[in-house]
Amino acid sequence: MTSSQSKPVRQLVVIGLGLIGGSLAMAARQRGICEAVIGIARSDDVCKKAIDMGVVDTATTSLEELAPSLGVGDVIFIAVPTLSVRGVLQQVRDLISPTVTITDGASVKGSVLRDVQMVYGEIPPQIVLGHPIAGSEKSGVTASNPNLYVRHRVILTPTDETEDLHLQRVTALWRGVEAEVLHLSVAEHDEILAATSHLPHAIAFSLVDTLAHDSHNEQIFRYAAGGFRDFTRIASSDAVMWRDIMLANRQSVVKAIDLFIANVTRLRQSVQDEDGDALFQTFERAKAARDHFSAMLAQRSGISLEEE
Amino acid sequence: MTSSQSKPVRQLVVIGLGLIGGSLAMAARQRGICEAVIGIARSDDVCKKAIDMGVVDTATTSLEELAPSLGVGDVIFIAVPTLSVRGVLQQVRDLISPTVTITDGASVKGSVLRDVQMVYGEIPPQIVLGHPIAGSEKSGVTASNPNLYVRHRVILTPTDETEDLHLQRVTALWRGVEAEVLHLSVAEHDEILAATSHLPHAIAFSLVDTLAHDSHNEQIFRYAAGGFRDFTRIASSDAVMWRDIMLANRQSVVKAIDLFIANVTRLRQSVQDEDGDALFQTFERAKAARDHFSAMLAQRSGISLEEE
Repeated sequence: MTSSQSKPVRQLVVIGLGLIGGSLAMAARQRGICEAVIGIARSDDVCKKAIDMGVVDTATTSLEELAPSLGVGDVIFIAVPTLSVRGVLQQVRDLISPTVTITDGASVKGSVLRDVQMVYGEIPPQIVLGHPIAGSEKSGVTASNPNLYVRHRVILTPTDETEDLHLQRVTALWRGVEAEVLHLSVAEHDEILAATSHLPHAIAFSLVDTLAHDSHNEQIFRYAAGGFRDFTRIASSDAVMWRDIMLANRQSVVKAIDLFIANVTRLRQSVQDEDGDALFQTFERAKAARDHFSAMLAQRSGISLEEE
Repeated sequence: MTSSQSKPVRQLVVIGLGLIGGSLAMAARQRGICEAVIGIARSDDVCKKAIDMGVVDTATTSLEELAPSLGVGDVIFIAVPTLSVRGVLQQVRDLISPTVTITDGASVKGSVLRDVQMVYGEIPPQIVLGHPIAGSEKSGVTASNPNLYVRHRVILTPTDETEDLHLQRVTALWRGVEAEVLHLSVAEHDEILAATSHLPHAIAFSLVDTLAHDSHNEQIFRYAAGGFRDFTRIASSDAVMWRDIMLANRQSVVKAIDLFIANVTRLRQSVQDEDGDALFQTFERAKAARDHFSAMLAQRSGISLEEE
């Protein structure tokens, strides 16, 4: 082991070796930014796979065994489904020293912050919540990708209680795997993600479900085209993960769906009334906004964003 | 000029040199399946561009001048916006011999069939309506692509009146540019396209318009990710074209939007009620249907579908 001073993180402990956790572990390991990368999974099988694939240096099913060896400079990354975070936090509270930095990768931050407050009775300075805006329809440890976060955005949502030392350590971890780190408040994060990610997923799932129930089912899929394929790709995402996200961000999601239903109902009325001007104006505004978004992405030159 | 007997089409006349018309002209010309490819555009400027780019052999702004030279073996392809088809049909009725084959590429077939009946007082045997399921967000003669139709589907919607000779000629034309030709009734075509293409476009336009009006506008686009990009790509499509399509297929579009709003409202209620089971079941059904669709596309091995 070379100079431990130069590593931004001493030991990285990843709890949950799915796509998000496995990819961070593998990315950190390949780039040598930690002294050791340790995985924690629910089954021996996943632990073995993670070691065999080079995702982690070592892996175990027991946080309890590992806990005494963790201290200053170490980071725990909680990468389990959103609604499983609370259970993990209870274990962490009972076992882990206040010197260890704790962060997560859940898609909703308000529910995790509530979990923290519920479990700890306060927000401990060691906790830095975050959300890497990366992912795909794939899941599981075998989907681990050491370049998943390159040029992707990671949103950290520190609170007034967060200690700067811990925030800096988590920032260094993400920068070390070539991600771009940004800050938002918990409320802003959840509202923005409801609009740009959770609402589109709700719509895509609902549309595909609508068509799959149609009497022309087979016909419909036979004649569906490229635009339909792009439009519905996110409906192939994991059902458990998305159930959890919708429930965890319930209020913002309901608000976003309501706004959307109101708009689509107005559009439907314009079609019904043969109001060509209203249709043209809506489509033209949308096209301008979408083209602006494309230009923004292009300007970011190479910043590619894949979404959870 | 070599043996004219071997060419499936004598002269191909393309009225409207946008993406759809320009691409068919260029594809037919490059593959040598017609004796001549003639373009008709509204401006001298487009005619000149089309000739310079090698989209057509010759081009003119006047169907009247060209009309006397057209007869058996010639095909007129009407490739103007859906709601402009009727005006073109009136010219064609007045100028063109009943021996010439007439076809089109409009995205809605019911409205064009009504135009035909209105203009001719009947459905002439020479008319074969069709819809190439190809296109992109690009438009205009400069977007002409000689491989746009390769392995793409073209739906022809012959009626009882359609004469077999004309149907065969249009089929030969599309096969000549390497498209796959399928038949549907006019009503089936419009219902299926409403579900798989017109509804997704209505949703994408409406979603982007909803977000663009949000107070977090800039924020929202800054944090939008890859799934959002795919999901909203079709909102960059041409506003005039899509206004026309929505109006032309009004009844089927309204029906499809109503079905979708009912489904998305049910989903919203499940989120509101924290009904995790209902959410999981909807997402799981949708995922299964979408995965089935992916498998169908993969099985078709190389049949790539891009949508208008």
